[in-house]
Amino acid sequence: MKLYTSYRAPNPRRVRWVMAEKGVEDVELIEVDIMAGEHRTPEYRARVGVPHVPALELDEGTTFSESIAICRFLESIYPEPNLFGHDAREQAVIEMWTRRCEFYLANPIMLNVRHSHPALAALEATQVPQVAQYNKLGAEKFMRTLDRRLAEHEFIASDRFTIADVVAVVGLDFARLIKYRPPEEFTHLARWLEASRARPAAKAGV
Amino acid sequence: MKLYTSYRAPNPRRVRWVMAEKGVEDVELIEVDIMAGEHRTPEYRARVGVPHVPALELDEGTTFSESIAICRFLESIYPEPNLFGHDAREQAVIEMWTRRCEFYLANPIMLNVRHSHPALAALEATQVPQVAQYNKLGAEKFMRTLDRRLAEHEFIASDRFTIADVVAVVGLDFARLIKYRPPEEFTHLARWLEASRARPAAKAGV
Repeated sequence: MKLYTSYRAPNPRRVRWVMAEKGVEDVELIEVDIMAGEHRTPEYRARVGVPHVPALELDEGTTFSESIAICRFLESIYPEPNLFGHDAREQAVIEMWTRRCEFYLANPIMLNVRHSHPALAALEATQVPQVAQYNKLGAEKFMRTLDRRLAEHEFIASDRFTIADVVAVVGLDFARLIKYRPPEEFTHLARWLEASRARPAAKAGV
Repeated sequence: MKLYTSYRAPNPRRVRWVMAEKGVEDVELIEVDIMAGEHRTPEYRARVGVPHVPALELDEGTTFSESIAICRFLESIYPEPNLFGHDAREQAVIEMWTRRCEFYLANPIMLNVRHSHPALAALEATQVPQVAQYNKLGAEKFMRTLDRRLAEHEFIASDRFTIADVVAVVGLDFARLIKYRPPEEFTHLARWLEASRARPAAKAGV
C-alpha cells in the first residue's frame, strides 16, 4: 500500500499517528508538496478524484481519501491497539466523540488558521476575517465541553487512547501555526493535551 | 431504544431515512422541539451531553448523539439493506463519499441556511452574511465534483443506494428552506436527486 501524505498538514498526520500507534511499517509514504500544488496536478486528481491529502492506494489499485476512512481501514488490517472500538456500542460512542472533535474542534481550528495565516492565503480563494473569527469562537465553545469531559475521564471517548484523541490533538496542534493556545482556564484539557503530546506516536508526520 | 428526533431538522432526518430503508419499527420516537429550545434544557443536556438532535438511547441506558454514529449502530442490528459496506474496502469507499458529502455539501449548506434564514437567527448567536456566502460557494464547488461522479454512476458511492446518498439528499433538501436550488448545469446531480427523492424512505422525518 502507498500513503500520499504531507508533512505538517493535519489530516495526513492523523493517519501517520495511527500507523505509529499500531506499528505499521509496510505502507510506502509518498510525500505530496501541497504548498507547491502537487495535490492539484492532473495526475494526482486522476488517482484520488479530489485535490486532498491523505490518500491510501491499495495494491489492487483502489485509492481513497478521507483520513478517518483510511484509519478505519488500517484498523481492519492492524487491529491492535484498538482505536475505533471493540463492539458496535463502543464503536458508536467513539465515533460520536471523534465526530464532535472533528466538527466542533478540528474543522473550526483549520478554518480559523486558513483564513488567518498569511502563508496559507494560497490555499483559499479569499481569506475572510469573519470566517476566521466565527470558527475560533466555535472551537472554544467546544473546548469547554471537552474540558468538562476530561475532568472526569483520562481520555476523550473511552478508558483508553482512541482515534477521538488523535483527531483532537492534531486539531489543536495545527493552531500552533498562528501561535494560538487554548484558554488557560481549561486545565483538564491542558493535562490531557500534555499527556497526549508526550506519546511517541505524536511525533509521526510532523 | 428511543430516538430523540426533530421533524424538519436535517441530521435527525438522516436517521429516520435509514430506519425507513431498513424497516426499523421498534425504536420509540421522542419529538424534541428545537425551535422551543427543548434540546437546551438541563434534562436533555444531562442525557445527551450536548444540545444536539438526534440522539439514540439504548435500553441499558447509554445515550449517544451524532447521526452517522447512530446510523452505523443501527446497521449493526438491522444489517439489511446494507448502507455502509460489506467489507473493509467497500466500507472505506462509502465512508469516503459520505464524509465528502458531509464536509463539502451538507455542512456548508447548513451553515448557509443558518446564517441566511430569518427564522433560524434563534439558533445562531450572530448571523454573519459572509459565512453564508462562503459556504454557499463551497457547496457549489463540491456539487460540480458530484455531478461528474454521477455522470458515470447511478449512486454516489457504490452500485447501490448507501448512506452517502442519504447524507447528500438530506443536505440538499435542507437548502429548500431558503428556496435554494442547485445550479441547472448539474444535470446528472438533478437526475440522481429526483430519483432519490422518489424513494419511499425519503418521506421519513419530514
